[in-house]
Amino acid sequence: MKKRFNVSVVGSTGAVGKEILALLEKRDFPVETLSLFSSQNIARASFKDSEIVFLAAGASVSKDLIQRLKASNALIIDLSSAFRMEDNVPLIMPEINGHLIQKNALNSSPNCVASLMALPLFPIHKKWGIKRIVATAFQAASGGGKKLLQKLHDDTKSALSKETSKDPHFYGFNLFSHTSPLLDSGYVEEEKKIMDEMRKLLNAPDLKISATSIRVPVERAHSISVNIQCQGKISLEEVYKLLHQTKGVRIFEDRKNNIFASPQDVVGKEDVFCGRFRIDPSEPNTLEMWIVGDQLLKGAALNAVQIAEHLTEKKNETI
Amino acid sequence: MKKRFNVSVVGSTGAVGKEILALLEKRDFPVETLSLFSSQNIARASFKDSEIVFLAAGASVSKDLIQRLKASNALIIDLSSAFRMEDNVPLIMPEINGHLIQKNALNSSPNCVASLMALPLFPIHKKWGIKRIVATAFQAASGGGKKLLQKLHDDTKSALSKETSKDPHFYGFNLFSHTSPLLDSGYVEEEKKIMDEMRKLLNAPDLKISATSIRVPVERAHSISVNIQCQGKISLEEVYKLLHQTKGVRIFEDRKNNIFASPQDVVGKEDVFCGRFRIDPSEPNTLEMWIVGDQLLKGAALNAVQIAEHLTEKKNETI
Repeated sequence: MKKRFNVSVVGSTGAVGKEILALLEKRDFPVETLSLFSSQNIARASFKDSEIVFLAAGASVSKDLIQRLKASNALIIDLSSAFRMEDNVPLIMPEINGHLIQKNALNSSPNCVASLMALPLFPIHKKWGIKRIVATAFQAASGGGKKLLQKLHDDTKSALSKETSKDPHFYGFNLFSHTSPLLDSGYVEEEKKIMDEMRKLLNAPDLKISATSIRVPVERAHSISVNIQCQGKISLEEVYKLLHQTKGVRIFEDRKNNIFASPQDVVGKEDVFCGRFRIDPSEPNTLEMWIVGDQLLKGAALNAVQIAEHLTEKKNETI
Repeated sequence: MKKRFNVSVVGSTGAVGKEILALLEKRDFPVETLSLFSSQNIARASFKDSEIVFLAAGASVSKDLIQRLKASNALIIDLSSAFRMEDNVPLIMPEINGHLIQKNALNSSPNCVASLMALPLFPIHKKWGIKRIVATAFQAASGGGKKLLQKLHDDTKSALSKETSKDPHFYGFNLFSHTSPLLDSGYVEEEKKIMDEMRKLLNAPDLKISATSIRVPVERAHSISVNIQCQGKISLEEVYKLLHQTKGVRIFEDRKNNIFASPQDVVGKEDVFCGRFRIDPSEPNTLEMWIVGDQLLKGAALNAVQIAEHLTEKKNETI
């Protein structure tokens, strides 16, 4: 008999929580009992018998629960930003650093943009040593939760009816800078997460990186335009070869017909789609590429479920 | 009595042509006669008495007409890409290089993204010497003409009705790589225009630049995220001071409320809006900024009309 697990999901009614539940079923995760908590009913929640706990209700809920959880012996997978940058908490993508998973303690799952970008960039970094990244993220509405997705629909209907709006973050045929708090540096919190977490994920504390996050009128799936300067001598041929072999990455290009990955192509897909590879002639050993991925899957729920799979026989191979 | 001019507009029924007509009126341009041609009725068009000719019907029409026009003594302003990179044709933005205008010959007006970007970058280049630019453009539908704007509306209505599509360039809550022809370099033609024209506009043949063009579901106005490495020692304080003084540039930031320029803010506006200035810590003397402008105005029609104004008393000052 295979071992089965007592699983708890905190934030089970949110967009990411729902995807976790769907993936546990789809991937045939060996569940013994399943306990679901929304952020409303966690006050008296007990995790005494939990063996795996997913925290998908945001940073403040994770912070509230962490003391209660630390007493348990569970594998805790926090999808929020609450503890990602703490030294004693590993930031996990199983394909990159699955060996760091703390099977009876707290693990963090990274920011959506950072995880979608890190998966194809990790093999590039291993082979050629990435020196500097300039990343521009086209972030979808569902990354901001149900409310932002509803706003996208409402504002788009207004725009189609030619209504005008004074809302500075009007979302009908319009885009705007990510509305996470602006820091003294001029970067917004989302951009800082991307920059900090990329360094931690790639285990490259000296990696230079600048990120820009823009909210675009797309329902689901983030796109990222990335400029990557490497130390080693890159060639396009080897980039294709390398990423063809990378599990979880799909090269999606029809260059003859000028077709590359779009958000609609990746919705519901587990892979991170890449393309538009080109040598940037403006610096030596520099690559431009285009990355599109479902931020609710590999950018959140899927990565968390893959971490949990390290307790089972269905482990992901590291890249 | 002020001198008045015989003006011809080729492509007068297109999106840019219409804006030229509106601007001539709005800016009280001294028109004596106005001759309008659509691309359908140019075969027998005569420009014998024209003193100013706007070519706004695309590159192939400009190429067809150029021999007939060269015989004239007119100020020719070509808004297409047909001749922009030819050595004997100046690429003009009046604020940058108005002194190069050929008053009785052919002048080119630059690509929309290049012009919106060059206006704020020119004073930065003059002061600190730009070494390298990484630019990511969020390009609106109307840059692709009436057909693409209609497609945006049609596809968005389909998306709101939850219809799915196999169109790789589906435009309902979706974005895609700019569909201009893909070159052997892996850049699309639009990106090559931006890179080549920035060098010519800034008179900086050695400027290093890489560009990415993405078509986003926005009706009108392009946005550009720009990473700018300079030679000289930049400071944010001086960047603000410099751009505050730059004619045609408007700093649009409400940092306290996290409000920056959006496409909807600039539609119909002549200025290029800038903001989100921040020092990129990943390279010395490097600036991140966000530029949004109406690509039909300063990105096309307005710049062309400003070139024509060099024949009148209403000249633009160079920056």
